[in-house]
Amino acid sequence: MAGSLVERTLARPSFEAAFAAPAFVRAMLAFESALAAAQAAEKLIPAPAATAIAAACSSLRIDADALVAEGKRSASLAVPLVRLLREEVARASRDHAAHVHLGATSQDVLDTAAVLCLKPCLEETDRALEAAVRSLARLARAHRASPMPGRTLMQPALPITAGLKVGRWAVALAQDRERLAEAAQAGLAVQLGGPVGALEPFGERGPAIRHRVAMALGIADARAWHVHRNAWIDLLGRMAQVVATAGKIARDVSLLAQPEVGEMLEAAPREGVGASSAMPHKRNPVGCTHALAAAIRMPGLLATVHAGAIAEHERALGGWQAELAVVPQMADALGGSVDFLEIIASGLVVNAARMKANVVASGAEVPAASLESAVDDVLADLAPYLT
Amino acid sequence: MAGSLVERTLARPSFEAAFAAPAFVRAMLAFESALAAAQAAEKLIPAPAATAIAAACSSLRIDADALVAEGKRSASLAVPLVRLLREEVARASRDHAAHVHLGATSQDVLDTAAVLCLKPCLEETDRALEAAVRSLARLARAHRASPMPGRTLMQPALPITAGLKVGRWAVALAQDRERLAEAAQAGLAVQLGGPVGALEPFGERGPAIRHRVAMALGIADARAWHVHRNAWIDLLGRMAQVVATAGKIARDVSLLAQPEVGEMLEAAPREGVGASSAMPHKRNPVGCTHALAAAIRMPGLLATVHAGAIAEHERALGGWQAELAVVPQMADALGGSVDFLEIIASGLVVNAARMKANVVASGAEVPAASLESAVDDVLADLAPYLT
Amino acid sequence: MAGSLVERTLARPSFEAAFAAPAFVRAMLAFESALAAAQAAEKLIPAPAATAIAAACSSLRIDADALVAEGKRSASLAVPLVRLLREEVARASRDHAAHVHLGATSQDVLDTAAVLCLKPCLEETDRALEAAVRSLARLARAHRASPMPGRTLMQPALPITAGLKVGRWAVALAQDRERLAEAAQAGLAVQLGGPVGALEPFGERGPAIRHRVAMALGIADARAWHVHRNAWIDLLGRMAQVVATAGKIARDVSLLAQPEVGEMLEAAPREGVGASSAMPHKRNPVGCTHALAAAIRMPGLLATVHAGAIAEHERALGGWQAELAVVPQMADALGGSVDFLEIIASGLVVNAARMKANVVASGAEVPAASLESAVDDVLADLAPYLT
Amino acid sequence: MAGSLVERTLARPSFEAAFAAPAFVRAMLAFESALAAAQAAEKLIPAPAATAIAAACSSLRIDADALVAEGKRSASLAVPLVRLLREEVARASRDHAAHVHLGATSQDVLDTAAVLCLKPCLEETDRALEAAVRSLARLARAHRASPMPGRTLMQPALPITAGLKVGRWAVALAQDRERLAEAAQAGLAVQLGGPVGALEPFGERGPAIRHRVAMALGIADARAWHVHRNAWIDLLGRMAQVVATAGKIARDVSLLAQPEVGEMLEAAPREGVGASSAMPHKRNPVGCTHALAAAIRMPGLLATVHAGAIAEHERALGGWQAELAVVPQMADALGGSVDFLEIIASGLVVNAARMKANVVASGAEVPAASLESAVDDVLADLAPYLT
Repeated sequence: MAGSLVERTLARPSFEAAFAAPAFVRAMLAFESALAAAQAAEKLIPAPAATAIAAACSSLRIDADALVAEGKRSASLAVPLVRLLREEVARASRDHAAHVHLGATSQDVLDTAAVLCLKPCLEETDRALEAAVRSLARLARAHRASPMPGRTLMQPALPITAGLKVGRWAVALAQDRERLAEAAQAGLAVQLGGPVGALEPFGERGPAIRHRVAMALGIADARAWHVHRNAWIDLLGRMAQVVATAGKIARDVSLLAQPEVGEMLEAAPREGVGASSAMPHKRNPVGCTHALAAAIRMPGLLATVHAGAIAEHERALGGWQAELAVVPQMADALGGSVDFLEIIASGLVVNAARMKANVVASGAEVPAASLESAVDDVLADLAPYLT
Repeated sequence: MAGSLVERTLARPSFEAAFAAPAFVRAMLAFESALAAAQAAEKLIPAPAATAIAAACSSLRIDADALVAEGKRSASLAVPLVRLLREEVARASRDHAAHVHLGATSQDVLDTAAVLCLKPCLEETDRALEAAVRSLARLARAHRASPMPGRTLMQPALPITAGLKVGRWAVALAQDRERLAEAAQAGLAVQLGGPVGALEPFGERGPAIRHRVAMALGIADARAWHVHRNAWIDLLGRMAQVVATAGKIARDVSLLAQPEVGEMLEAAPREGVGASSAMPHKRNPVGCTHALAAAIRMPGLLATVHAGAIAEHERALGGWQAELAVVPQMADALGGSVDFLEIIASGLVVNAARMKANVVASGAEVPAASLESAVDDVLADLAPYLT
Repeated sequence: MAGSLVERTLARPSFEAAFAAPAFVRAMLAFESALAAAQAAEKLIPAPAATAIAAACSSLRIDADALVAEGKRSASLAVPLVRLLREEVARASRDHAAHVHLGATSQDVLDTAAVLCLKPCLEETDRALEAAVRSLARLARAHRASPMPGRTLMQPALPITAGLKVGRWAVALAQDRERLAEAAQAGLAVQLGGPVGALEPFGERGPAIRHRVAMALGIADARAWHVHRNAWIDLLGRMAQVVATAGKIARDVSLLAQPEVGEMLEAAPREGVGASSAMPHKRNPVGCTHALAAAIRMPGLLATVHAGAIAEHERALGGWQAELAVVPQMADALGGSVDFLEIIASGLVVNAARMKANVVASGAEVPAASLESAVDDVLADLAPYLT
Repeated sequence: MAGSLVERTLARPSFEAAFAAPAFVRAMLAFESALAAAQAAEKLIPAPAATAIAAACSSLRIDADALVAEGKRSASLAVPLVRLLREEVARASRDHAAHVHLGATSQDVLDTAAVLCLKPCLEETDRALEAAVRSLARLARAHRASPMPGRTLMQPALPITAGLKVGRWAVALAQDRERLAEAAQAGLAVQLGGPVGALEPFGERGPAIRHRVAMALGIADARAWHVHRNAWIDLLGRMAQVVATAGKIARDVSLLAQPEVGEMLEAAPREGVGASSAMPHKRNPVGCTHALAAAIRMPGLLATVHAGAIAEHERALGGWQAELAVVPQMADALGGSVDFLEIIASGLVVNAARMKANVVASGAEVPAASLESAVDDVLADLAPYLT
């Protein structure tokens, strides 16, 4: 969730909302509720306690500022959350309050909540990627034989076709989509390990409880990953790959949208989009700006996550906290890329006449039929998206 | 300004507030108001227009969500802000509205606002650094001759004294403080250049107007730095240096606070501080956590700023926007470090007996008088802080 | 391949050699030779030309300094290499020289050579990971029930067993190994696309030629990935994950090797290892140093690769070149981690008595049988390595 | 010093040489020799011992591979170097050998050697910056009134003049030069502290010895900075600023050199420069490639240095070693930027006719005289370079 106004201007509202205070609190409470239910199902706590905890999770109203202020003193949001939840349960029944958060630790709540908040962002990304690939694949097919300059090191090389260029973008996004989905299966996993990750307060019922929590929350079951976070980091790295691909496409589009080049626009000019505060006539490539700002931010965020992974013993001092602070920003960068993909999916303008003119001006010949097989090869990969 | 709850838990409230929506909007309006006043003083616009604009800047109520939503469409918060301000002015006088934001561009507003928001954070940092240096200097003097193991590559080397270690921390912070203050003089500068940075709408009065704006806002005057941002980046880099020093001290303290070592605590145990959600007996080094989380985040943020500096032509596409999004996060990282420095300034616990015992246990001799001159040399540097 | 003496001190000799000048030249020539053979097999060039090219690739002696000097002028090593190879072929037969590098571009040579150089490093890493997992798994089994303090935020939490800690390290490495192998399958792919990646000089035989080159070089076939490099970046990211896990283990070991803790040593003291130039009695944890230096370097390198991926059009200006310069350094960081893993695989010292004493000193109870199921759960994952 | 062939292709030969094995060994020996001389002057060791050590430093022949192999075992090059030097001295006189490296530690040798190797690179950078600023300033003056499109967010905004654009580049470089020189004064300092940085083996003569060493080596005197490295990091950060400015200029030039834009070339086409292995007609912007590859690598390197600064106690485990490995790479990135600056200083081609045509084509008016004062303001800053 973006913080500052400028950061928010670059963020996708639904992704912002996914990590905003209400959603994160909801996710933490969903964890506590699912934990109690699982413990009741495994006879670790009385069923009425689980019911009371679930009710309290629904009725509890949290003041985010107060939560933050108290969480700061323990370097953990979970400490005040659990206290507030215990008090809420105790209002109904003092006996049940002791069953809140039983055997769990702060990291269990916070990691699982981060997973729950990221999940809808990834689902939305998957849909946006699918739509973008579909749209770009169709565009590639339509411009299968439209010649344009191929450019290397920012200089005209030999001609290609617009279909080849756009088709390659589409294939790259399709591959990113697959890799992201694969990593999400392993990376969106429950965290439940207790104080030192061994589930020892639950005895032999530990794995069963954890499995139930995972199922209830709709995420994968996995052994505690508190200090060995590579499945999760793998997922974050693949988010970064989507952002990089979108950034690459945005760089291409912004170069092609220079009026001296004039071969593409991210979208047809629309009133109020891309406006300048100084020059009313100007139309800025807003989508490209978002995608490139995301692509410039993401490498540093990914580096932070890797740096934070050098965790001390059974819970890191600083590294884990830095990572959790950075994950919502990675989601925001992904959201900015998704925004861009939606813009080009619905509106990318291709100027075939100008492309051809630029080929001719470069002194190159219009590409021979030999390019067709290259385009068809790319389109073949996109067949599932061309139905 | 931190966004997510977790990020906020790591943030210093006053630094959060400095970049929060109300403060940033206020800073943008302060720019517009100062601009109009300067233009009136230079006879570029009528004095009543400046008065009307100043009044509108005071009376205008901005809905941050709406501002963000509209700003997203132009990749610039300034576009909707200027529109709203013009409308507010027009409500009083249609004629004056045309004088709003005259000759300025979005980047002028946004860069200057970022500078204005960062300024109080740096002033607070300066005071906190001074207090920390004073406190640590006194502690160094008090433990001038308290032997403790010197440790290299995480193994005992030869003994030092606690005064030497703590004194070195203090000197490092004092030097960081000087470097930060020096960079702030150049880096906290007005941005005013207009559409392409040339101040050309103002004719020959451009520099005079810019100077007046800078004076009114209490920041340095400087030629437009829209795409050559190294004075500003230098300042951000020096913020990173403070964070690195605080991180180094926090690493030392956290190592010394291991019970097997037992030589220091960041603060005496206090009720409710450093609590664990799973283990009531435990006291976590919360200040160290904040300082280390900040130090782990900062390198990636600094890298982003440098990556964003490769700006295209007269205004960057993506790089500048990424930088502005990152600056509040750098302030937050600095704030987390300041929090830590305040904690140790007021409460660092030194266990001289344990230090000495560890020296003896390491088989080393208690340090000879030869160390005294090293300590005195360090203390001499700290003399201004030992009055 | 490491450059400076200091960097070389951190590097693994076999990994250095894999990217050293002779190996990289050999890899570039292997590409040219395989290309000619494939083109001959597909009747694009005469078979004798391929034979002559293969012979020239064997006989050619390259002066690395001259190659670099000339390559610098074109920002491409391939330009002088191809020239030299053509001249070598021409010495035998002027006619055949025209068939050298036919239809290929610099990036084809350089990317494929980088892949060929990385391949043996990954194979060696795979073997080292397997050996490390085997060794750590046995150690975990042996210390299945040896109590030691679990530590969170650098403070004792509840006890665990050494088997649990070491077993978790082993599982993490085993998972990293799988992920790395998976990514290597896609990421170690031939690059062959010609000037704009379309293989158009080869007409319809393009894919067949590329396939033959890949088979001859023992790497995967793939469509040109010149500007959509995510399969390759995915592989580099997974190398970074191995480095992060090794770094995490090294941090644990170095913390446990503090004499005040005394629970582990990376290896029993040996003459001449870990020596200090100032203190003859001292033994530094050299393996941990290498692993941690690697883990500190890797995030910045991975960030560079992601930053470089925002490629312009059909070949990047700067980003691709930066990436290729960084890949050997990533291999070096991986090599430093592999060195560390070999050290602990063969020599990690566990001091169970000291662990138990520290548990007792922390006031905790020696862990109940409830931990056993957690350890057994971890060991079950390691079963394939415990045969 | 660059390692791999690709990295070397991006490196400046003189900067490579500055950190190459012979130079680094020479620098380490210069330290040892200066140390002995200073100790003799301060009566800590006999004068003949210093003479013998100086002689041995001259006569000693070091095999870099063997040094690295042995240095790897201690994670320190200084350990084998000191051993070899002692043996060399002992060959002449066994008595003197004990005086080698007296009271110093590995880090003293290595840090000081890194400083000595960086020094000539910075001197060369200073000269190149001066020449570049002079050349660009003249060009700015010559094109003081040549209109060209100002471009923001990659779209034409209002016109500027070429003099304004080039003059701004020049001012930015001139400011970078000043900042770099200032940081070099503090950052190029001797490291001499002994095992724990306290100079205690030297007693009261410590500071005097250190001062003599610094003077002999031509660098600044400073208290041991082994774990508080911000003066040094500040210098590295300012190197990064030069690289960023060069990268920004290279991005501009490469955009302007697109044939569709046609406003600038980094240099007039020359035989053999910018050649392509696939397309003989093509001329790639080689200088821009080097500058941009440097600018893409530098942020990650700077991040590494900051990450490594979180040093443990009196000597870091991993962080310091990572930093020293990265410093030569930062010098290489700087060298690549200097290469680019030299190219444009001697050859930047400005096509005023094309610029004007692009202004007209953008529908803008040729800039009014109002721009002149902006240009003159910039040129005034450059007056010292326009003599």
